[in-house]
Amino acid sequence: MAGGIYVFDTTLRDGTQGEGISLSADDKIKIARKLDKLGVHYIEGGNPGSNNKDIEFFKRVKELKLNAKLTAFGSTRRKNIAVEQDGNLQRIVESGVPAATLVGKAWDFHVHTALQTTLEENLSMIYDSFAYLKQYGMEAIYDAEHFFDGFKNNPDYALAALRKAHEAGADWLVLCDTNGGTLPNEIRDIVARVRNELNAPIGIHTHNDCELAVANTLAAVQAGATQIQGTINGYGERCGNANLCSIIPNLQLKMQYHCIADEQMQQLTSVARYVSEIANAHMPVGQPFVGSAAFAHKGGIHVSAVMKDSKTYEHIAPELVGNKQRVLVSELAGQSNIISKAQEMGLDVNANNEHTKSIIDKIKDLEHQGYQFEGADASLELLLREAFGQTKEIFRLESFKMLVEKSAGQMMSEAIVKVNVDGQTVYTAAEGNGPVNALDNALRKALVQFYPDIMGVVLSDYKVRVIDEKDATAAKVRVMIESTDFDNTWSTVGVSDNIIEASWEALVDSIRYALLGSEKQESEQATRGQLGLVNH
Amino acid sequence: MAGGIYVFDTTLRDGTQGEGISLSADDKIKIARKLDKLGVHYIEGGNPGSNNKDIEFFKRVKELKLNAKLTAFGSTRRKNIAVEQDGNLQRIVESGVPAATLVGKAWDFHVHTALQTTLEENLSMIYDSFAYLKQYGMEAIYDAEHFFDGFKNNPDYALAALRKAHEAGADWLVLCDTNGGTLPNEIRDIVARVRNELNAPIGIHTHNDCELAVANTLAAVQAGATQIQGTINGYGERCGNANLCSIIPNLQLKMQYHCIADEQMQQLTSVARYVSEIANAHMPVGQPFVGSAAFAHKGGIHVSAVMKDSKTYEHIAPELVGNKQRVLVSELAGQSNIISKAQEMGLDVNANNEHTKSIIDKIKDLEHQGYQFEGADASLELLLREAFGQTKEIFRLESFKMLVEKSAGQMMSEAIVKVNVDGQTVYTAAEGNGPVNALDNALRKALVQFYPDIMGVVLSDYKVRVIDEKDATAAKVRVMIESTDFDNTWSTVGVSDNIIEASWEALVDSIRYALLGSEKQESEQATRGQLGLVNH
Repeated sequence: MAGGIYVFDTTLRDGTQGEGISLSADDKIKIARKLDKLGVHYIEGGNPGSNNKDIEFFKRVKELKLNAKLTAFGSTRRKNIAVEQDGNLQRIVESGVPAATLVGKAWDFHVHTALQTTLEENLSMIYDSFAYLKQYGMEAIYDAEHFFDGFKNNPDYALAALRKAHEAGADWLVLCDTNGGTLPNEIRDIVARVRNELNAPIGIHTHNDCELAVANTLAAVQAGATQIQGTINGYGERCGNANLCSIIPNLQLKMQYHCIADEQMQQLTSVARYVSEIANAHMPVGQPFVGSAAFAHKGGIHVSAVMKDSKTYEHIAPELVGNKQRVLVSELAGQSNIISKAQEMGLDVNANNEHTKSIIDKIKDLEHQGYQFEGADASLELLLREAFGQTKEIFRLESFKMLVEKSAGQMMSEAIVKVNVDGQTVYTAAEGNGPVNALDNALRKALVQFYPDIMGVVLSDYKVRVIDEKDATAAKVRVMIESTDFDNTWSTVGVSDNIIEASWEALVDSIRYALLGSEKQESEQATRGQLGLVNH
Repeated sequence: MAGGIYVFDTTLRDGTQGEGISLSADDKIKIARKLDKLGVHYIEGGNPGSNNKDIEFFKRVKELKLNAKLTAFGSTRRKNIAVEQDGNLQRIVESGVPAATLVGKAWDFHVHTALQTTLEENLSMIYDSFAYLKQYGMEAIYDAEHFFDGFKNNPDYALAALRKAHEAGADWLVLCDTNGGTLPNEIRDIVARVRNELNAPIGIHTHNDCELAVANTLAAVQAGATQIQGTINGYGERCGNANLCSIIPNLQLKMQYHCIADEQMQQLTSVARYVSEIANAHMPVGQPFVGSAAFAHKGGIHVSAVMKDSKTYEHIAPELVGNKQRVLVSELAGQSNIISKAQEMGLDVNANNEHTKSIIDKIKDLEHQGYQFEGADASLELLLREAFGQTKEIFRLESFKMLVEKSAGQMMSEAIVKVNVDGQTVYTAAEGNGPVNALDNALRKALVQFYPDIMGVVLSDYKVRVIDEKDATAAKVRVMIESTDFDNTWSTVGVSDNIIEASWEALVDSIRYALLGSEKQESEQATRGQLGLVNH
């Protein structure tokens, strides 16, 4: 064990500076609870001097009795006033938190250009502000803004800023790469030099402008920093803050530092996804450690090796961070992906069998036409079940008709479907909010009398992509639909040069998949009576 | 200048291993053209032994006469056969590329577990395969798979694999961190040890599983690697490959290595966005260097400092990589772009003018609804011209009707439009290959008698994006259309919860823009007679 590291989470403060990230006091409470379960040591809740939402948060969060230490954020006192006159610092003390972080300049250029004061006044601002916090018995953390740029430009002044905070009683000196422009070897060298000059606990706060925030944090820890500041999923201004979801497992699983308990580490994936939901921020499938594709295998040779030993193409066991292995199917894949998928489904397949080979050829051919099964597991499963004679015909389309009309500025979309269910022809129509919605409504309406379960299924996502753009509006489109019954989620695909037909294909697969295990309803009349449908 | 670095792009090969990334031969041609303009030295086009699409690509790409060297990808020969019997290696030679990359095992564990052969046979496979390529006079690149894991487990064997390739004539030894689990300090140490042992050009190929791919590449270059392998936007399996869009500016702007010309560097942002469009992969706003938020400022204090001197919160000048500064949630945001666009068009605008402010408000409101004018210059220009009374009404829609029918397995799409041109009602119908194509045909048919020029305009691209995915098929869609008259190309946008209406909007803008300078045709009867249209 190389040593203990304090995890300082600033998702609720610096994370909200990210474009499109906005959290209510309620959202912040929910996230704080999760962060506490994850085992972070500090939760920076916000800036009580800057807005009322954060004041409300600090009031409410106290009731949660968290294990993590709550910290409030602010700046060193304004120039040329007494510290007692600084309203923002008063708000921090009033918020009743046990710890506070104050940002203060450490780059002489910023003192002149942004602050527009003297180097001496900035040092007094630092000293006065930390002495003020310590007077109230608070734990005091100095975020030395632009420390690395400052050190490169004027090392004596950057160190003088740290010394002032230290003399005033600051408990932590946190070196910030505020603009995110510093390289890992520079970080390592400068942190080591600071450690030679000052005997104080050192923290590191990096930004991702060079795609190096994680590496920079690791380099600082290797040089002796013991507090790491960052955010869940790396949210933050511009290119984001250092991503704790990558830093924590790197430090603990690869470098033998201790950050959180092993059971807490197993919650990392669910915490990351939860926070992305609350923040309404799209999580990239390929996000390291916690993304849904982080342990997904696509290449055929890779898949066959992973089936022999997952260590062949996985750098850690995904379960350590609460994630799991997935196998994708695609044109690049040899047959092993398809075979493992079929085996998952309990189908009896064999790579040397002619039948299996013909199924693989069929899938490859469909992919060549533009189908993509890696994101459409349910369509693939239907295809495999069909090949093995394990599907029943739920219904057969006789015809559909779509009508979209714009008249007097109003849009109207209507679908008419004629389907055959078990020998019976159902002919029905429905309106919708757009053509695909109308088609979906009409199809459900036709089937509900036989399969009432389909009313519990909703489409949760709809994607369209033009496959070959050469012919513009006459080009092929691929439609992907995601559906859910609130227990399970599944995806289906359709391809055609007609967007309505492609949507129809994906819709039909979605409903066929939903009804795989359903039995046809016997009391047809009762159901139809209830819903008042007259379809024939 | 620290030295020249060879940039090896594998977007078209390893990039397509990423989940959701699938490129047609056509897409690959488009991307290859852009990569060549960017100035990469090698373009790995695909794996001719694995699929026909890649064989087609290699055939077509030769006609482009690119400056970059094209390379094909494959594996060392299969075990226990003569190299001449290996079909995949034959395909590579047949593809006619000047260079090829072969992946071969360097980790003893993989030889036993995945390959299931002896350590000796694997070394022979490496030797035979590279000797075979050299026999055909090709440049030969050895991707030493799992080199770092292999070296940590059995350094002698990992080095023996490199030596075999080198002896057989391989021109490059590329050390791969295939599982993405290695840390920067390990990479640096191991590359340095390899350089001590072997006098050969070294490359580096990393993956992003620890969010360290960029740092690992930089560490390898610092230790003496002179070829960097990666992809645009970091596309690739699991968490992706090393992101060239971050590595190139880090090496060149911060570490004084030379990769590409300065003018090429200024195309980095547009290339990254173009590739993300072609791959239909969402680009994170906060992507380092090239993302739309990479130089966006939100915090009030930051904004005011940036206005004094952008160096205060920007690690590089965004123009160096073709990106630009943005200020979020501020009265000043966007305004200057719009004003500069209007000035370009010769319109008399003034930031302090009430009329200008109301136009900016209108554009902001449209953007809030989902319109995006950055990629739809023609729609923006029409909007501005309208606001300044500089458009004429070419036609006015009275109504349209779309009919899509599927019956007896056949699809039929038909559009009926009723438009008013200069007081005259034109009522016409057309079929099409899909609903949007039918609408396009009907609209042209209605207008051609007045504006014969529109027959010279074709739609060259059509894109659909779901904006808010929560309500699935009832969600809003944004349609972007690109049109060309073979001299000029322009883009237009439409937004609606109905895909047909959104397409209609973009279509109408496209045609209005095409006809901006056109005069209405006087000899209507002649034109109508020629085309045989009877529309009233």
